[in-house]
Amino acid sequence: MNQELLSKAAKAKEASRSLAYISTDVKNKALLNIADELKKRSDFILEANSRDMEAARDKGITGALLDRLRLTECRIAEMANGVREIVQLPDPVGEIISMWRRPNGLEIGKMRVPLGVVGIIYEARPNVTVDAAALCLKAGNAVLLRGGTEAINSNIAIASIISDAVSKSGMPEGTVSILEDTNRSVAAEMMKLNNYIDVLIPRGGAGLIKTVVENATVPVIETGVGNCHVYVDEHADLDKAKAVVVNAKCQRPGVCNAAESLLVHKNIAGTFLPAALDALRAQGVEVRGCSETKKIVPWIKEAREEDYEQEFLDLIIAVRIVENLEQAVEHIYRYGTRHSESIITENYTTARRFLQQVDAAAVYVNASTRFTDGHQFGFGAEIGISTQKLHARGPMGLRELTTIKYVIYGDGQVRE
Amino acid sequence: MNQELLSKAAKAKEASRSLAYISTDVKNKALLNIADELKKRSDFILEANSRDMEAARDKGITGALLDRLRLTECRIAEMANGVREIVQLPDPVGEIISMWRRPNGLEIGKMRVPLGVVGIIYEARPNVTVDAAALCLKAGNAVLLRGGTEAINSNIAIASIISDAVSKSGMPEGTVSILEDTNRSVAAEMMKLNNYIDVLIPRGGAGLIKTVVENATVPVIETGVGNCHVYVDEHADLDKAKAVVVNAKCQRPGVCNAAESLLVHKNIAGTFLPAALDALRAQGVEVRGCSETKKIVPWIKEAREEDYEQEFLDLIIAVRIVENLEQAVEHIYRYGTRHSESIITENYTTARRFLQQVDAAAVYVNASTRFTDGHQFGFGAEIGISTQKLHARGPMGLRELTTIKYVIYGDGQVRE
Repeated sequence: MNQELLSKAAKAKEASRSLAYISTDVKNKALLNIADELKKRSDFILEANSRDMEAARDKGITGALLDRLRLTECRIAEMANGVREIVQLPDPVGEIISMWRRPNGLEIGKMRVPLGVVGIIYEARPNVTVDAAALCLKAGNAVLLRGGTEAINSNIAIASIISDAVSKSGMPEGTVSILEDTNRSVAAEMMKLNNYIDVLIPRGGAGLIKTVVENATVPVIETGVGNCHVYVDEHADLDKAKAVVVNAKCQRPGVCNAAESLLVHKNIAGTFLPAALDALRAQGVEVRGCSETKKIVPWIKEAREEDYEQEFLDLIIAVRIVENLEQAVEHIYRYGTRHSESIITENYTTARRFLQQVDAAAVYVNASTRFTDGHQFGFGAEIGISTQKLHARGPMGLRELTTIKYVIYGDGQVRE
Repeated sequence: MNQELLSKAAKAKEASRSLAYISTDVKNKALLNIADELKKRSDFILEANSRDMEAARDKGITGALLDRLRLTECRIAEMANGVREIVQLPDPVGEIISMWRRPNGLEIGKMRVPLGVVGIIYEARPNVTVDAAALCLKAGNAVLLRGGTEAINSNIAIASIISDAVSKSGMPEGTVSILEDTNRSVAAEMMKLNNYIDVLIPRGGAGLIKTVVENATVPVIETGVGNCHVYVDEHADLDKAKAVVVNAKCQRPGVCNAAESLLVHKNIAGTFLPAALDALRAQGVEVRGCSETKKIVPWIKEAREEDYEQEFLDLIIAVRIVENLEQAVEHIYRYGTRHSESIITENYTTARRFLQQVDAAAVYVNASTRFTDGHQFGFGAEIGISTQKLHARGPMGLRELTTIKYVIYGDGQVRE
C-alpha cells in the first residue's frame, strides 16, 4: 500500500468525523479564506501552472487539452468567485427531510448528514481541484483528490493554498488533500480503499470513468457521457423546434448535455428539415443524415450506424427520420446514454408518453437539453451530472454530496 | 458468458422498460395472483423443498441452517400474506417528490421511477425469493434472483409459480426470473453485468456480502452486519436502561439490529450493572466484561478485545465501563458497524451530542436498537437494512427500490 495514500486517506477519515457536525459558520469562513488566498497567491499558482504547461508542450500536447490546463489571473478569479457562490448556498447538513411519530410514540427523523470522505479522481483541468474541494467541504465531507499528471504542479499549488486556508479557519487537518504521486497504481489502490473512502466520483473522459467503474470496490457515482437527442414530433411547433435544435447542438457543443442526434417525425420532415438543417449549417455544423433525410436535403453527408452511437462533442449532428413516437423512443433506448432527451411537440398525449417511456436523468418537453446543469436547475453549483441510477441522478449539487441517518427519539420503548 | 444468465438478464432488461410505467392496478393484481398461487400450489413447493432438505441432510447440514431451509404450509401461508401486505402499500412510482419553476419558466419536477433491473444474490432462505420478487415488482423493477445451491429446488418451484402468476396478470415475461445454475462462476459473471443489471442487493452472511462488494462492478447496496451498542449514560433512567438492554440483547438475538455490546458510564456502573447483568443472566445471556465490570459483578467472564469486535448473533454480550460520553462514542466508532446505536440518558445535551457524533444508519435515544426495521419504521416492508451511505441507508422499503428522473416542462426555452 502506498504510504502517501494511506496516510492522507486516514487523515481524511479522521477529519470527516468532526466535519460531520462542524457549524455552517466555520465552513463558510473557510470557504471565504480559500477564495481570498487563491486570489492573493495567484502568482504562486501561475508559476506552478507554467511548469505544467511547459511539460505539456514538451510532450507535444496542444489544442483543447493544452487550453484546459492553462490558468490565467482571470481563470483564478473565476475559481475564487465560484467558491464565494458556494458560501451563499444553504448548508444541506442537519436538514430533517421528514419526521414522523409511530403508534408506540417513537419519533423517527430522517436527517441529512455528510457522506464522509469523498474521493475525486480527475483529469487535466486544475479548476476541478477548487470546485470539488469547495463543494465537498460545504457539504461537510473530507475530500481526497487525485488529479492527472499533466496538472500536478498546479493541483499541488492550489491544494496547498486550500489546506492552509482550511487549517487557519479551525477545520481539521486532512479536510482537503491531494495525492502528489500520480502513478496509476496509487489510483488503483485508492479505488479499493473502502475502509477510508465512502464514495468515489470520477470526473473526466469516458476512459477514466470506465476504469473507475470497472476497478473500484468503493461505491462510485458515475458522471457522464451524454449522447442526447432532440425528437421533433409531427405536432411540433416548428419554430420552437428549430430554435431548440440549434441551441442544443451549437450553444456549447463540447459538453455532455449538448445534443448529438436529431430525430424527426416523417410527416413534418419535408417542411422542417430544409430550414432546420440550413440553420445548423449556418452555425458551422456538419450534418450526417439517414438516406431519407438526404432525399430531402441533398447537401448533407450520409450517416453511418456509428454516427448514432457517438458523443461527437463537436459541431456534428446525426439526423434520422422516424415513423412515429415509438420508433423515436426505440432509437433513444438503443443509442442513448440516459442523460438528457427532449421532445418538441404541442400534443399533450405524445408529450406525456415521451416523459413516461424515455428513461434518462432528464427528460424534456419543448426545451433544450442544455439545461441539464446544476446552475440551470437552481442548485447553485454542481459537482457533475450523474448518469447512474443509484444515489444521485442528473446534476449533483450539495444535497447529492450527503447521505442520511435516522435519528430516533424514544422514552424507553422496547420491541414486543 | 453463461447463456442462461445472459438470456434471463436480457429478458429482465427488456421487461423493465414497460414495467417502468405499468399501472399500479396491474402490479397489485399480479401480487394477489402470486399470493393465491403460492397457497394453491403449496404441495408443489413442499415437494421441491423436501428434496432440498434431503440433500442438505445428506451433506450433514443441521440446526439453524437446516431450519432456515425448511418450508411448511404455515411458512408458505406467511409468505403469501407478506405479498398481500405489499399490495396494500402505496405505489412509490410516479410520485413527484418536488417541483419548481425557474426564472425562465421551465418547470422542473423530480419524479420517482423504478431502478430497472434489480439483482438479488442470496443464501439458503427460500422466503427471500418471494419477498424480494414482490417488493421489486411493486416498485416497478424486474428482478433477477440468484439463490444458493441448498435451496435451489424450492427456489425454482417458487419462482416458476411467481412467473406464471405474473404472466397471467399481463406483465412482461422476464419480470421475475431465477438462475437455475448456482455455480459460483455464474454469480461472478452476474456481478459484472452492468449493461443489464442496475443494482445488486446481496442478502446473507458477512462472507457473501464481502464477496459481492469486492467483485461487483454493478452498483451494490450493502446490507448488513450489525455490531450494535447500547450506552447507558450517567444520567440514565436505570429502569428504562435495564429494559432497553434486555430487549436489545434478548428479544431476538440472531438478527443484525440486536445489541452486541453494553457501554456503561463509570458513575452509575456500581448501581446499574449488578441488577442489569442479573436480568441478562436470567434470560440466559453470557456476559463478557472488562476488568472494571468484573470487579463489580464477579460472576461474569473477562472480555477479550475480539469480544468487542464481534457480531455474536447469540445470547452473549460484551460489557465495558467508560469514563464519559466521548469514550463511549470513540468505542462505537472503533468497533461499530454503523448500523444501530442507542444512548440511554435523561440529559438533553448528552442526548444531542450522541445523536450528532455517532455515525450510524440509526441513532437512538432511550429506545431499543431492535426497532431498526422497515415494519417498525412504518415502511410496511423491507428488502434489507443498508449499512452503506450511498443511495439508501437503514431499512430499505419500496422507495429505496426506486430512483428519480427529472421531468422538465418548457415552452421552447433555449439556453443563453
